[in-house]
Amino acid sequence: MNYKYYMPTRIIMGNDCITNNSEVFKTLGKRALIVTGAHSSKKNGSEKDVKAALDSACISYLVFDKIMSNPTIACVYEGASVAKGNDVDFIIAIGGGSPMDAGKAIALLAAQDISEENLFSGIYENKVLPMTFVPTTAGTGSEVTQYSILTNDKAQTKTSIASDLLFPTVAFLDSKYMEQLSVNTTINTAIDALSHAVEGMLSVRASTITNALASESIRMIMECVPEMLQALNSVPKTIFNPKNREKLLQASFMAGMVISQTGTSAVHAMGYSLTYFKDIDHGRANGLLLGEYLRLVEKEQPDLAGKILKSMNLPCANQFVELMNELFGKKEDISSEEINQYSKLAMQTKNIANSILKPKENDLKEMYTASFIN
Amino acid sequence: MNYKYYMPTRIIMGNDCITNNSEVFKTLGKRALIVTGAHSSKKNGSEKDVKAALDSACISYLVFDKIMSNPTIACVYEGASVAKGNDVDFIIAIGGGSPMDAGKAIALLAAQDISEENLFSGIYENKVLPMTFVPTTAGTGSEVTQYSILTNDKAQTKTSIASDLLFPTVAFLDSKYMEQLSVNTTINTAIDALSHAVEGMLSVRASTITNALASESIRMIMECVPEMLQALNSVPKTIFNPKNREKLLQASFMAGMVISQTGTSAVHAMGYSLTYFKDIDHGRANGLLLGEYLRLVEKEQPDLAGKILKSMNLPCANQFVELMNELFGKKEDISSEEINQYSKLAMQTKNIANSILKPKENDLKEMYTASFIN
Repeated sequence: MNYKYYMPTRIIMGNDCITNNSEVFKTLGKRALIVTGAHSSKKNGSEKDVKAALDSACISYLVFDKIMSNPTIACVYEGASVAKGNDVDFIIAIGGGSPMDAGKAIALLAAQDISEENLFSGIYENKVLPMTFVPTTAGTGSEVTQYSILTNDKAQTKTSIASDLLFPTVAFLDSKYMEQLSVNTTINTAIDALSHAVEGMLSVRASTITNALASESIRMIMECVPEMLQALNSVPKTIFNPKNREKLLQASFMAGMVISQTGTSAVHAMGYSLTYFKDIDHGRANGLLLGEYLRLVEKEQPDLAGKILKSMNLPCANQFVELMNELFGKKEDISSEEINQYSKLAMQTKNIANSILKPKENDLKEMYTASFIN
Repeated sequence: MNYKYYMPTRIIMGNDCITNNSEVFKTLGKRALIVTGAHSSKKNGSEKDVKAALDSACISYLVFDKIMSNPTIACVYEGASVAKGNDVDFIIAIGGGSPMDAGKAIALLAAQDISEENLFSGIYENKVLPMTFVPTTAGTGSEVTQYSILTNDKAQTKTSIASDLLFPTVAFLDSKYMEQLSVNTTINTAIDALSHAVEGMLSVRASTITNALASESIRMIMECVPEMLQALNSVPKTIFNPKNREKLLQASFMAGMVISQTGTSAVHAMGYSLTYFKDIDHGRANGLLLGEYLRLVEKEQPDLAGKILKSMNLPCANQFVELMNELFGKKEDISSEEINQYSKLAMQTKNIANSILKPKENDLKEMYTASFIN
């Protein structure tokens, strides 16, 4: 078995971990750029905790809070220009996948000049600003990966920059910042993490170590599904149990570690078009497609599907599809023309080649159809 | 749950991984010091492969092959003096735990002046030579830890240096170098790794991520025990299956990742005296003690023992004790005076405080007695 493993990010996990470890910021420099969205990091207390820790460590900072959902290339160039113009030593990204993915690109672009044409090349000088990440959702796993996923209008999809330079230096993981997340966001992000873990096990680059992490991540997320369903079906929608919040955060970074080694597979390749063209949430898109992909794997490679289903504690892929349908409710309308277009686009991605079970274009069409048209 | 996780070593796993990745050496410098023992790395082909890779990468090197079993402080100072005197840029350690642990101390001492009094302090300047490690046994896990265990005559035991500076930069893992290991060495080293994984699960610093790695490591090693017993009982002793060799190598580095986060527990604390005073192999010492410790945990914290036994696929600790007795055969003679002395020494180590179930001095005496006197 040939594989490589590398994940150098320092993880600091637990309640009040930022406040209790403010000295960590001192090791990164004297002036920071906080990269975040306009609202959530202010509401959930994470930005306040970071600022207090920076103050106590005598580190000056400025805030770039213009990161939108699915950040664009223009947005990260603007952030890099702010970083350069203000001589910041390091980046602190706070938020869900969007500010973290943008934060990585900004840290790279602030340290070296890269033209837009070369941004996705993966070939850079060995220079990047140090990065501290504070995830405020439990899904993306970006805090422990070398990927920055940006919206690429030229390619009409989301495209990832992948480079070992982009591993964050430090990730602070505190599930208290997730307490106020809506039930829908909690579900969408948790199922994104689940998709990472499952796709990791379905990757040609899966290894003993990634499978160990993925199995445990799947087990932990599935343990939280009953509470997700309960929260979804109660009026008013109930608050999530803090222990489960922490479980989801741990499962999500472990699934992030998995895809940092394995990459993602057909599901992500298919999901990107749903997000790009139909504005369907990334985790939701993956969750709805994942069941059909698992059904295909069950048919073609039952042993492989069996390992995943065992971690899920489910007897068959059908039951997983039913659970996802319960979690995600009414589905979006997608026409057969759209399905043809998305299937073509997905076939061109490297994620398909990365899958142990490589679906054909027709398989993709059938998966889209079964997932969305019924 | 509060914890930290950090393991920045790049792992390159698989058959011929050194030959196929010789360019990696180029990223570390122009002149290398190979740190190894006198014989085994020459016999098993690892030194030859490393030299060929260095030649092909146009990197000059010299060899310091004076590392003995359980390396002493004098030995690592001598190696550091060779490194300094020859302006080497990086260290390549080849061998079992002894050359790897020595290699770390040499890399540290070659980069900065540290007096013998301060060697175990853990407080150093932020300077160390880059290190490439090639384990040729599957047990120590040193290739992915920040520990260097040296024989400390002043403290009459083995003492560890622990510093994030000591994480190797790269670990090349190729199980072909283990093909010629004797059955006894294979067993001793495998059970050392098993002890790491089990002790990791019994550590106060155990976390979701370390438990996932430890469970899988335990499962993999236990899958190889039947072949160990078979090899031990056949005449001539049989060669080990290459697939199991690779399984043990993977299990051993994963168990190394576990203790890099959790440290070891009472078992290692007790084992050190057996190695220091009685010259009992480190893995054998741990294996013989581990069963009794697991019996104690089963009595006091059955749920915790249950998780470990589940990974072992065994119904109770007694069966594990029996397996270890079968693997290790006739035991050494240890007097009750020696047991009293070793128990006192073990109580002073930080490993005891690191254990979820903190044994009292009397527990240690009982464990030594049950393990060795019967």
